[in-house]
Amino acid sequence: MHYELYYWPEIQGRGEFVRLALEESGVGYTDVARGKGGTRKMMRLMQGNALKTLPFAPPYLKAGKLWIGQTANILFYLGARHGLAPKAEAGRLWVHQLQLTIADFLVEIHDAHHPVGVNFYYEDQKPEAHRRGEDFRASRAPKFLGYFERVLNKSRGPFLTGRRVTYADLSLFQVVDGLRYAFPKSAVRLEKKHPRVVEVHDRVAVRPRVRAYLESDRRIPFNRLGIFRYYPELDG
Amino acid sequence: MHYELYYWPEIQGRGEFVRLALEESGVGYTDVARGKGGTRKMMRLMQGNALKTLPFAPPYLKAGKLWIGQTANILFYLGARHGLAPKAEAGRLWVHQLQLTIADFLVEIHDAHHPVGVNFYYEDQKPEAHRRGEDFRASRAPKFLGYFERVLNKSRGPFLTGRRVTYADLSLFQVVDGLRYAFPKSAVRLEKKHPRVVEVHDRVAVRPRVRAYLESDRRIPFNRLGIFRYYPELDG
Repeated sequence: MHYELYYWPEIQGRGEFVRLALEESGVGYTDVARGKGGTRKMMRLMQGNALKTLPFAPPYLKAGKLWIGQTANILFYLGARHGLAPKAEAGRLWVHQLQLTIADFLVEIHDAHHPVGVNFYYEDQKPEAHRRGEDFRASRAPKFLGYFERVLNKSRGPFLTGRRVTYADLSLFQVVDGLRYAFPKSAVRLEKKHPRVVEVHDRVAVRPRVRAYLESDRRIPFNRLGIFRYYPELDG
Repeated sequence: MHYELYYWPEIQGRGEFVRLALEESGVGYTDVARGKGGTRKMMRLMQGNALKTLPFAPPYLKAGKLWIGQTANILFYLGARHGLAPKAEAGRLWVHQLQLTIADFLVEIHDAHHPVGVNFYYEDQKPEAHRRGEDFRASRAPKFLGYFERVLNKSRGPFLTGRRVTYADLSLFQVVDGLRYAFPKSAVRLEKKHPRVVEVHDRVAVRPRVRAYLESDRRIPFNRLGIFRYYPELDG
């Protein structure tokens, strides 16, 4: 099946978690909004009445007759189909649980620079971001990373749920990569305490399909429009 | 199957979405932390090594041999088993997509009183909360409620996905109920513009099992410890 991904063309954002899964799967897909007129098409579909399963926001995925919204939901769908999650229910639920915890972490990573809300520029919430950033570095980031470290310590393999890579591992790779970009100083300190998390990052980064993707121009560079944003003053 | 729910005993919080699904299903369950020594047991399980599928935070559910974490994941599991979601994949994914959008809405509802972070008291982030609360009332709440209103307008029945109630409808009931508690003045105004959302609330509230639950002491009253908190100054 050839998939169509609908996501903002200028950022990694939440769409990146889907892109990584599609790339690692080796399936064919079109990143629709990155093509000519694609963003307009994406917006029209969201504003119009054609989609029965209307998405609240990008990313959403066209998979045959299905239109699937919400990042974790898309990954749930793709995972079992393309070997990025176990096929059995217990395993699927466990990988999904991990993905939803990564989603919670992403909210906190984003809100470190946007505590007052998405409708305000960063420049209009700098003191608040400074305070939240401090708490993020000292408390929230270690709490989430510590959790994944514990999960990895219990795992029977190098990945979160064992010897086989899942979409949750791809997502954890992206989190580590993003933290390195957004909080370069803090990331050094955090990574020392969470070596197994870093190992997941490193193992995912060298998988042939992921590596080819990261080196291609399909990978949008990090920038100050996405979830992970580099503001030196938030890095302590 | 007799379920065991693990969640904080003094709040509705995210556990309430699971409680509502369990109650509407009519299945047997124990709200473990509300029993003697239950909170200690809940914490010990999270801190110990016994659980293979370690949860990051409550709620988590014991279902036979499975231990399932993350609210939306628990509901995904329960939904198809107890008639609160379609059994077919397309329908399950659609209900789950709606639930994940409700989860996103909940984060914003919570953060209206805690923009700087969960590690600070409300009293230590009042100016920030005031600003975020204003944006929440004027922009974010209408955006989310408007989305669910659109979904309901496209539905072939009174509920989000048609004629049958799903766990996403139960969750939408809880959101409306919570907004009435936390933002009583704003809720009046918001509800006028979203009559179909209110209809879901009203239909869920009178379902016999839900009503019996709401009238029982199993339903913990809203209070200033949960997601929905009433601070008059945040209600405009």
